Amino acid sequence: EIYTLSLHDALPIWSAVYNALSFGIAAMGSATVFFWLQLPNVTKNYRTALTITGIVTLIATYHYFRIFNSWVAAFDVSNEKGGDYAVSLSGAPFNDAYRYVDWLLTVPLLLIELILVMKLPAEQTASLSWQLGVSSAIMVALGYPGEIQNSLSERWTWWALAMVPFLYVVGTLVVGLGEATAKQGETVAPLVTSARLLTAVSWCTYPFVYIIKNTGLAGTVATTYEQIGYSLADVTAKAVFGVLVWAIAEIGRASCRERV
Amino acid sequence: EIYTLSLHDALPIWSAVYNALSFGIAAMGSATVFFWLQLPNVTKNYRTALTITGIVTLIATYHYFRIFNSWVAAFDVSNEKGGDYAVSLSGAPFNDAYRYVDWLLTVPLLLIELILVMKLPAEQTASLSWQLGVSSAIMVALGYPGEIQNSLSERWTWWALAMVPFLYVVGTLVVGLGEATAKQGETVAPLVTSARLLTAVSWCTYPFVYIIKNTGLAGTVATTYEQIGYSLADVTAKAVFGVLVWAIAEIGRASCRERV
Repeated sequence: EIYTLSLHDALPIWSAVYNALSFGIAAMGSATVFFWLQLPNVTKNYRTALTITGIVTLIATYHYFRIFNSWVAAFDVSNEKGGDYAVSLSGAPFNDAYRYVDWLLTVPLLLIELILVMKLPAEQTASLSWQLGVSSAIMVALGYPGEIQNSLSERWTWWALAMVPFLYVVGTLVVGLGEATAKQGETVAPLVTSARLLTAVSWCTYPFVYIIKNTGLAGTVATTYEQIGYSLADVTAKAVFGVLVWAIAEIGRASCRERV
Repeated sequence: EIYTLSLHDALPIWSAVYNALSFGIAAMGSATVFFWLQLPNVTKNYRTALTITGIVTLIATYHYFRIFNSWVAAFDVSNEKGGDYAVSLSGAPFNDAYRYVDWLLTVPLLLIELILVMKLPAEQTASLSWQLGVSSAIMVALGYPGEIQNSLSERWTWWALAMVPFLYVVGTLVVGLGEATAKQGETVAPLVTSARLLTAVSWCTYPFVYIIKNTGLAGTVATTYEQIGYSLADVTAKAVFGVLVWAIAEIGRASCRERV
C-alpha cells in the first residue's frame, strides 16, 4: 500500500519524504564523523562504546542513502507539459526492508553501547548485553512480517508479538537499570538516566508509527507520516542518543583527570 | 540454474536475496571500520591479527557490493501496468564467481588470523599458517568447478574433492589446536575455543548450502536458499568471528596492563 502516490500536485508530499530522508543522511553521516573524531579525546575504557556509537550511525547512513535512492527510483516526478508536477509510480519497487535490516544491526548495538558506558561489572555487562541484544533483535524480526502485510488483522498480530520483547527491553531500560544507574558517579548518573529515558521515549514512537497503517489509513498520507516519523525517531534514537553517550564518555574523562 | 526467477508476484523472493546481500554489505563494512578503529586500543602484538580481521571483512564488503549489483542487474523488476510485480531475467548474467574469489582470499586469511591470536611459538605459527592457508585455498578452488555445473554427478564429485581439505582444516581446528589452546592464559583460552568452534560450526553450513542444488532442487527456491545461506554463513564466519578475535586481543591488552 506504499505505491499509491499517484497524484497531480503531489510534489510537496513526495518532497517532504525526500527531504526527511536526506536529513537522515546528513544527520547520521555527520554524527558518525563527530563520534570518531572524538575517540582520541576520551579515555580508553570509553572508546569501544564511542566506536560502536559511530558504527550505529554509519550503518544508518548507509541505509538512509539506500532508502533515499529507492524513494527516488520508485517515482517519476515531472511537469513535462508545464503546470503542476505529476508524481507517478515508475514501476520500480520501494524497498521497505532497508529499515528493518538497519534496525536488526543497530538496535542491539545501541543497547550494548548504553550498557558499556554504564561501566557495570564485567559479568553483568555481558549478561545484560546478551539479554537486551537478543530481545531487541527478536523484536525487529517480529515487526517485519507485519510491515509488509496489507491485511490489517495480520499487521496487528505481528505488532502485538513484537511488543512483547519491546516492553521487556523498555522495562529494563526504565526500571531494571535504575539501581545500576544510582551507583554511577554523581556527574555521570544524570546523563545515564537521560540516555536511558531518551531511548525509552524515542522507542515509544516506533510502535505508533507502525500502527499508522494498521488503522486502515493507506496510500500517500500514511506513507508520508510513516517515512517522516521513522526518520525523526531514528535520528533521535541514534544520533542524539549518541551525543549523550559521548557526553558520558567526556565527563568520564574529566572526572578521571581530576583524580589523577 | 540460477536464472529461473521469472515469475509474477516474485518480488518477495527476489527481495529476500536483495536484502540478504545488502545486509552483507552493512555487516561487513561496519565490522571493518570497527576492527580498524580498535587498532590503537590493543597491544602491538595483536595488531597484525586485528588488521587482517578488517582486511577480511573489507574484501567481503567489496564482493558483497559486486554481488548485490550483479543481482540487481540480472533482473528486471517492475509493475509497469500496476498490480503484481513481475520479476524477469534482464539478460545480464548473475556472477557466481565473486563468492569464490572472495573465499580464495579471505578463507586463508581468516585461518591465519586465528593462528596469530593464539600466540604460539614462531615456528609453529608459520607451519600452521602454511598448512591451513594452502589447504583452505585448495578447498575453495575445488569447490568452484562444481558450483558452475548443472550436472548433479559432477557437482557431487567436486563437492567430495573439496571435502578432503575441508575435513583436514576443520579437524585441525577442532582437535589439532586443542592442545595449543589449553596452553593459553585462563582468560583467553575460552575465547580462543569459541573462535575455533564458531569457525568449525559456521564452516559446516557451507557444504550443506552447496548441496542444495546437488539434490536437484533448482530455480527460484534453490537460488534463494543458497544466496541467503551463504550470506548468513559469511557474516558469521567473518564479522562475528572477527569480534571474537578482537575480544581476544582486548583481553590480551587488559591482562597485559594488570601485569604492568
